[in-house]
Amino acid sequence: MPNFAIIGSGAMGSAVAKRLIDHGATVLTYLEGRSEQTIARAKAAGMVPVGRQELTQADLILSIVPPAEAIKVAELVADISSGMQAPPPFVDLNAIAPKTMQALAARFEGSGVEVLDGAIIGGPPVAGKSGPTIYISGDSAKPSRLLEDCGLRIRRLDGPLGAASALKMCYAGINKGFVGLGTAMLLAASRSGAAESLKAELSESLPDIDRKLSRSIPDMYPKAYRWVAEMQEIADFLGEDDPAATIFRGMADLFSRMASDVEGSRMLVGQLDEIIGHPGTDN
Amino acid sequence: MPNFAIIGSGAMGSAVAKRLIDHGATVLTYLEGRSEQTIARAKAAGMVPVGRQELTQADLILSIVPPAEAIKVAELVADISSGMQAPPPFVDLNAIAPKTMQALAARFEGSGVEVLDGAIIGGPPVAGKSGPTIYISGDSAKPSRLLEDCGLRIRRLDGPLGAASALKMCYAGINKGFVGLGTAMLLAASRSGAAESLKAELSESLPDIDRKLSRSIPDMYPKAYRWVAEMQEIADFLGEDDPAATIFRGMADLFSRMASDVEGSRMLVGQLDEIIGHPGTDN
Repeated sequence: MPNFAIIGSGAMGSAVAKRLIDHGATVLTYLEGRSEQTIARAKAAGMVPVGRQELTQADLILSIVPPAEAIKVAELVADISSGMQAPPPFVDLNAIAPKTMQALAARFEGSGVEVLDGAIIGGPPVAGKSGPTIYISGDSAKPSRLLEDCGLRIRRLDGPLGAASALKMCYAGINKGFVGLGTAMLLAASRSGAAESLKAELSESLPDIDRKLSRSIPDMYPKAYRWVAEMQEIADFLGEDDPAATIFRGMADLFSRMASDVEGSRMLVGQLDEIIGHPGTDN
Repeated sequence: MPNFAIIGSGAMGSAVAKRLIDHGATVLTYLEGRSEQTIARAKAAGMVPVGRQELTQADLILSIVPPAEAIKVAELVADISSGMQAPPPFVDLNAIAPKTMQALAARFEGSGVEVLDGAIIGGPPVAGKSGPTIYISGDSAKPSRLLEDCGLRIRRLDGPLGAASALKMCYAGINKGFVGLGTAMLLAASRSGAAESLKAELSESLPDIDRKLSRSIPDMYPKAYRWVAEMQEIADFLGEDDPAATIFRGMADLFSRMASDVEGSRMLVGQLDEIIGHPGTDN
């Protein structure tokens, strides 16, 4: 059975690892300097902590980290792979802009490492469900086949390195941007006394949107800190010439404010929970 | 039967007039300096063009214009009402921020005109359907009763003058902001070669959102020019302290770019139509 290495054992990384392990694979990881919580989650998923150099014993190395860490992880992998005769391919699965992906790939120049651009669309794998979908571009088909054989849903994109990242940016821009819009306007309604009438009007005239917001906003609270860099990546992806880049710089600031609130007073969380009728949480 | 005056005979103003006329009311309007198209639309709806001073013969004067014109219309009405013993009440139904609404109301100080804050949520009235919903705040109940009696769906808000405007800002921020997000990301997908995979992924994993975008984006083309000022009003409503104000300044620029394209080369319209499978239009 194949041997994978996954750098990053957050909610997504550890759940992807568990899916692979459940299909018989071994999943190595590197945990030096990580928090107790991360170490516990990695072990619970059945990942095997190893030293950094041993990561290269895998058939494939995956990076599943917050976007702001993607380049650092690539540099680590380029470093440990340097000088190897047949280093394992490297798949970046992070929510980064195509340009960031190209800058990341440049770290491997002359190293002999095959670099693939991947993007995960959907939440972490859950037993009994086939998602998320992992898009891969720049692939010779062999590396991603290994993932497919171990229970992951893979779609290959014809485009060049960066095509999967572009898809992820566009998808996240719509999906997470929508949560940002809803968050901003529910908070504004709350402070201007229009919360009740807004909620009533949404549930009546836009029931799909109302349902999606009521579910997605509480799901966002613990992820807001991670979405900050993701929104900045989307702004970079759109580029200075596109007026929509401004939209996502605003989104980054909004999620940054939410992230501070989630870790701090939870005043905004309380306002949002009240409008959407969410029972609230104590953690 | 009551006598109304409606200033503004765009798609919304003329359709509201027609609903009132179909219920037996007379609807006066003021058309000096308007385009041939506007004059034709007003007459087709059965509106009666009068001189500006005669507008005050109505039982109620409504303003239904693009947000950037709302203050100018209020000044006209304050001017023609000045010196009257019992001037008709004035209802602003435009998509303006609560602060703009308060600035607008200030134009009537000392005039004896009762000023109401209204907001229209939903598209123009269509025969056989009960919508849109017209929210009214700051109402003594009598003026809006007249509208209700002539076939409009009215909801009174308890809040002060500005509460209806706040509701409209929040609702439009979600509803039109969503169209802006979709427009921005579909265009980005188009120029980065990810259009096909994005459309496939959306229709599979977010079918509600996909359907709504496919319908709402073409509907937006002819309205984009009007949405520019509306997005600016939302940014003002949110205020400088709110990072989400930046989101709506970006939205205003995006719709401004769309409006230029709609009137010009229609290159962006073509890209959007191609992705969403819209047959396109020649107008």
